[in-house]
Amino acid sequence: MTYSPATADQLLAIRVNAGIEELARSERFAAAEPDMVEAIVEGVGQFAAGEWAPLNRIGDLEGARLENGLVRLPEGFAAAYEHYVEQGWNSIASPADFGGQGLPFTLACNVLENLGTANMAFNLLPMLSVGAIEALEHHGSEALQAKYLPLLVSGEWSGTMNLTEPQAGSDLGALRTSATPITEGEHAGKYRIKGQKIYITWGDHELAKNIVHLVLARLPDAPEGSRGISLFVVPKYHVKDDGAPGARNDLRCVSLEHKLGINASPTCVMSYGDNDECIGELVGAENRGLMAMFTMMNNARINVGTQGVQIAERATQQAQDYAADRIQSARAGSPDRTPVAILEHPDVRRMLLRMKALTEAVRALLYYTAGQVDRGTLGNTDAAGRAEVLVPLLKAWGTDVGVEAASLGIQIHGGMGFIEETGAAQHWRDARIAPIYEGTNGIQAADLVTRKLGLEDGQALIGLLEEIARDSSAEPALFALAGECAAVARWMREEASLDDRLAGSVPFCTMMAVAVGGWQLSKQLAAVNEGAAPALAATKPATVRFFLDRIVPEASGLKASAIAGAETLYAVSTEALLG
Amino acid sequence: MTYSPATADQLLAIRVNAGIEELARSERFAAAEPDMVEAIVEGVGQFAAGEWAPLNRIGDLEGARLENGLVRLPEGFAAAYEHYVEQGWNSIASPADFGGQGLPFTLACNVLENLGTANMAFNLLPMLSVGAIEALEHHGSEALQAKYLPLLVSGEWSGTMNLTEPQAGSDLGALRTSATPITEGEHAGKYRIKGQKIYITWGDHELAKNIVHLVLARLPDAPEGSRGISLFVVPKYHVKDDGAPGARNDLRCVSLEHKLGINASPTCVMSYGDNDECIGELVGAENRGLMAMFTMMNNARINVGTQGVQIAERATQQAQDYAADRIQSARAGSPDRTPVAILEHPDVRRMLLRMKALTEAVRALLYYTAGQVDRGTLGNTDAAGRAEVLVPLLKAWGTDVGVEAASLGIQIHGGMGFIEETGAAQHWRDARIAPIYEGTNGIQAADLVTRKLGLEDGQALIGLLEEIARDSSAEPALFALAGECAAVARWMREEASLDDRLAGSVPFCTMMAVAVGGWQLSKQLAAVNEGAAPALAATKPATVRFFLDRIVPEASGLKASAIAGAETLYAVSTEALLG
Repeated sequence: MTYSPATADQLLAIRVNAGIEELARSERFAAAEPDMVEAIVEGVGQFAAGEWAPLNRIGDLEGARLENGLVRLPEGFAAAYEHYVEQGWNSIASPADFGGQGLPFTLACNVLENLGTANMAFNLLPMLSVGAIEALEHHGSEALQAKYLPLLVSGEWSGTMNLTEPQAGSDLGALRTSATPITEGEHAGKYRIKGQKIYITWGDHELAKNIVHLVLARLPDAPEGSRGISLFVVPKYHVKDDGAPGARNDLRCVSLEHKLGINASPTCVMSYGDNDECIGELVGAENRGLMAMFTMMNNARINVGTQGVQIAERATQQAQDYAADRIQSARAGSPDRTPVAILEHPDVRRMLLRMKALTEAVRALLYYTAGQVDRGTLGNTDAAGRAEVLVPLLKAWGTDVGVEAASLGIQIHGGMGFIEETGAAQHWRDARIAPIYEGTNGIQAADLVTRKLGLEDGQALIGLLEEIARDSSAEPALFALAGECAAVARWMREEASLDDRLAGSVPFCTMMAVAVGGWQLSKQLAAVNEGAAPALAATKPATVRFFLDRIVPEASGLKASAIAGAETLYAVSTEALLG
Repeated sequence: MTYSPATADQLLAIRVNAGIEELARSERFAAAEPDMVEAIVEGVGQFAAGEWAPLNRIGDLEGARLENGLVRLPEGFAAAYEHYVEQGWNSIASPADFGGQGLPFTLACNVLENLGTANMAFNLLPMLSVGAIEALEHHGSEALQAKYLPLLVSGEWSGTMNLTEPQAGSDLGALRTSATPITEGEHAGKYRIKGQKIYITWGDHELAKNIVHLVLARLPDAPEGSRGISLFVVPKYHVKDDGAPGARNDLRCVSLEHKLGINASPTCVMSYGDNDECIGELVGAENRGLMAMFTMMNNARINVGTQGVQIAERATQQAQDYAADRIQSARAGSPDRTPVAILEHPDVRRMLLRMKALTEAVRALLYYTAGQVDRGTLGNTDAAGRAEVLVPLLKAWGTDVGVEAASLGIQIHGGMGFIEETGAAQHWRDARIAPIYEGTNGIQAADLVTRKLGLEDGQALIGLLEEIARDSSAEPALFALAGECAAVARWMREEASLDDRLAGSVPFCTMMAVAVGGWQLSKQLAAVNEGAAPALAATKPATVRFFLDRIVPEASGLKASAIAGAETLYAVSTEALLG
């Protein structure tokens, strides 16, 4: 099962929701002119569909395997990664100083969207490298940057993020991996790293010539909790003075997790310093590791939100193909008893349009968010604040949509959807990780109702809702939803306790995301009606109307949950609950 | 991961929602007195938890395998099935004439609920046998009944239902398996069956001494479509005059499907008559096979709806155990920085209470429906009509809830939920089949807005909503939902086209199910407040309030979708949609 890149809808979203033409008017992003944008979107789409998509199924079936200490990927992955690096797709938005192309983040999002639609598990390899690049770019010394960034930017080396330990999941303050300063000898000024990390995505493999691990660890006598965590760069192979990989560092992949999905992405248990010889270098200031992580968290969360679009797009295309090919039953009530393609039946058509509407709405939200990030890079602090508000919406709702769309895809296949060889089930299994990692969706919602709700004394969030309300006077359901969101936000700020806010955080996050998604889709529809994307002239009105008329009112139904408060959750004691 | 049977909540639902005491006042169900009911509910719960639950994980890991033409189950299944038969759990509601215990269907539902919570895949074996028993009980000749029913009722033999063919999924009228009358020789009066059937649950195995296949096939010169289908009984082993299994019939399991879940349930491709020697006997009248299927469909759909409760209960217990054991982070905003069990965090508690509330609501709906079926058996035609309305609600919403609860269970586990060894993912994979088989949930919703909406000139459905509204004057959200359901129903009957109704069928089905579930939970709460179930006095108010205050208003949000009509679905042409 292959796929066609959603080039037309991506270009529309990049123009309308990200506002790429305005970005290209800045000196920084002047290269992002229309021809370049089209060349990238079309080029990466073709590359992803042609080279990465065919590996999606074998990646699921065979998966990554640990054999004699080496992580092996199925046949074809190495060549496909090599071509990816050769064609320069890894370096789109990285700084020109280190060989990057310096283009807007918006376009880097598009590269990941296409690669991940082709092969979500494989795409985690470049996605994690982005985190390592950003960590070094923002917090590394010039020496560290010179040593690591050029080959990370090109993609010849890959990167990982090492946060979680068995006892420290969402609560990173509880981590125990240690870093001991080395005062003399060859490695003086560096650190001995010792500890075990879990859930390390693409923690080991043979596709890149070196792997640059970013590792959170504790210095001796560091303060307890989250204020005592520092960030280290720990390469798989030491790096020689000429930049080439040298001897093996003392770290290894101990085991791979047997997961529900994304089987081609090796999820490693990593052991650092089994022989007390694991050497790392400090990135940024001592005990400021979590702060360093936070600076790259926004983009990482956007990239995970993008995985929702990826799976939704892929599942939708597969379901659409099936629904167009599968002939079953005549139309209900039709005098003509000839069986028709199931996509002619009202409920199958409803499911398919729902999939398409959700996919396009998350895509609109994605590029709107990415455009705000790029404006923030250009110094627009309002846009940066708005991006802060948008990120949890995109991550949480985008990934929920990925799961929902994949589930609808199974349902459209009927019994065939439950048979693994069809491929519909893989999307659903793959999608399920995205609401969990990079901060569970509950943590996204908590971020929304605590930090983001208070930004700019509430104006960051309220201002967004006012803008939606102003633009949607002709769309009663969207206008109502924006008002309900504002009412919930006011209640949360003025009346609710912290527990109350957390108790309503997830439904509120969904309401907000649907409101912004609907608003951004409306902008697309207006642009299409003005001739912006002739290829979408027939479908966009249908998907936007579906979203505004059916999905937006559903979100209004969440208001009661958002303001129900915490009291009823604790009215039953924990002891009674456990029985 | 084992589980504790939900005995107290089951007994409450059997009393309050099924009204078992009233049923026991009838002559037919006089044996269902309180001691007997308790003995059954407690007994089967202990049996299921003790003997079937421990096989759930190995059943998933090893699954059913086809080896040299034999379907093999993992170690332990054969003994566990033997004990099940020995203890008489298979015969609870079967007619006493054939060795059954003649108890209410309500109690048979409880047996399946417990067995399926322990092991959903295994429980499909007795569940499918029920269908074969009912087919023969209602449509078989006395001779066929005498030949097959006693050992099917005891469970020594199992049964299967053979409907689907590759080209005939939801549209059974398209099936091609043939049945040719035999006019002379040993098998005169019987039929030669020839064809291939797919998705045959427990189509072959060695746990029972014989397998009784109920097969839909076409007689020569039968009318086209659904009016030309007859029902045949086709045993794996021919049955000798003394009732013992004889020679092998000409049928076999050709292959097993590799599925997303329920791996211990062999899903067979069955081939009948490869050597033109497959012999079957007609059940009921010629060309009336689909009608015969319909008579047993209601109970089969209830049993599949029950699978939603099963998975939801099991996933909830597992998530609750994890959330009580997993210590992570202090309570937000608390001056005490000691990490707490995650179930103390508001959003985890919200997820857990949502799981519990949904589970209990579907259970309440299940036993309410079962009680109506039993009243129908006693001759109460109003109850029979109401059961007709309830069945699609239970099947569709119940199975949707199973998937949702299992997904929340994964989410509560965080990263661990995505690791297969935790077991949370198995529930989600297992659950996903239930919205598909025994009539997809789309077909359930279509049944609701066509046949069921018109029953008793609309009064079957409207009368139910009026009763809910009358009983819920103190619950504004439930009262509002009942009114919205009634408004949708009126629109569907008076204004909407058939396409409009089908376009809104799934959201309407969910709205209706939530209304009935909330209503039945309210009745439980009243009973608990009057002292009916001291063991539930602390938790029931919390789950019922959660359902009424949060889940009921969400269902109101579906109204716009229910009445959005079909026009927008077809505003985009199929050609444009396919691009």
